[in-house]
Amino acid sequence: MKIIGHAISVSTSTRNQMLNITRQVEDAVAKSGIQNGIVTVFCPHTTAGITINENADPDVCHDILLTLNKLLPQNLSGYQHSEGNSDAHVKSSLVGCSRQVMLNKGNLVLGTWQGLFFCEFDGPRTRSVHIQVMGQ
Amino acid sequence: MKIIGHAISVSTSTRNQMLNITRQVEDAVAKSGIQNGIVTVFCPHTTAGITINENADPDVCHDILLTLNKLLPQNLSGYQHSEGNSDAHVKSSLVGCSRQVMLNKGNLVLGTWQGLFFCEFDGPRTRSVHIQVMGQ
Amino acid sequence: MKIIGHAISVSTSTRNQMLNITRQVEDAVAKSGIQNGIVTVFCPHTTAGITINENADPDVCHDILLTLNKLLPQNLSGYQHSEGNSDAHVKSSLVGCSRQVMLNKGNLVLGTWQGLFFCEFDGPRTRSVHIQVMGQ
Repeated sequence: MKIIGHAISVSTSTRNQMLNITRQVEDAVAKSGIQNGIVTVFCPHTTAGITINENADPDVCHDILLTLNKLLPQNLSGYQHSEGNSDAHVKSSLVGCSRQVMLNKGNLVLGTWQGLFFCEFDGPRTRSVHIQVMGQ
Repeated sequence: MKIIGHAISVSTSTRNQMLNITRQVEDAVAKSGIQNGIVTVFCPHTTAGITINENADPDVCHDILLTLNKLLPQNLSGYQHSEGNSDAHVKSSLVGCSRQVMLNKGNLVLGTWQGLFFCEFDGPRTRSVHIQVMGQ
Repeated sequence: MKIIGHAISVSTSTRNQMLNITRQVEDAVAKSGIQNGIVTVFCPHTTAGITINENADPDVCHDILLTLNKLLPQNLSGYQHSEGNSDAHVKSSLVGCSRQVMLNKGNLVLGTWQGLFFCEFDGPRTRSVHIQVMGQ
């Protein structure tokens, strides 16, 4: 079994943003030379996340962020954390900071409409994403 | 180490539905012959998800779906995606499209009350679920 | 490849609580002797969860729980489950019952501000957390 780690950098340009990173994850998988196994995509930040959702119509990402912003306004009565980004921490825990995707014959096992997205909730910032390929 | 992939098909009968697929996952694990490792259950759709929740009282699934529907109505002012299922995409990213369960001596390591559920958010449809067993 | 399982017990003191369990997970990893791979942290309960969020300012956990409680009140018109903890089941499915963290040279690959938290949504109770270290 081989375990290959890789990190990429992404730059966001607004406070809330979903960036399609599928291509970068596929590149890391190709470099690893691993054909079958599991790929972990992990965001080491507490005000961002990783999700899998539609890769075709960018309106889907728009609507996801719109919904999260309506459910989770930036300022809520009772917030104690002084950085003004408590909403971003909540979004991170609800969306989650990582996803696992199966690897089969060198290909990510994603549905036709699925892409991997880095979710920025407190940008703009420069962020890291860790990618681990584990298999044979 | 062995890596065995499997896919199952599930059919849903309403727009929002939770289907207990624990038995099907256990069957895939048994067929794999793997005793110890990790099982990944992955939904390749962007308007559905996978969760782990109570396997005993079906009222729990009723209440989970009721809550999600109240939080995330089908139509929200500002939605741009033209298919009328933006709420289903949001639910998919919040619930998540996969879960991992440990495998010990051939058994899924689930709590007494835990079952694996396919979550339909834009049915009725026929859907796929990928199951990967990785271990020895 | 080695696969080492471990379980810890945690006690919660209020209905909703986030407990930092990073140290206990690190201890399990150290005992396993495994240097590189993936660590799965899994909660076998349906009214609790596992998340990764800020390890420094406890106000972040306060604000996360405050937000979840505002979004998901304990009693919602239409709840059928008779135990009065339907909100806790919803929180469990939204936060998720497990997280995976990469292991590199014996260290959990967490960001500077990231910690692993057990999330209690129906306490106080004594709970279990399963930790699996898989790698070499």
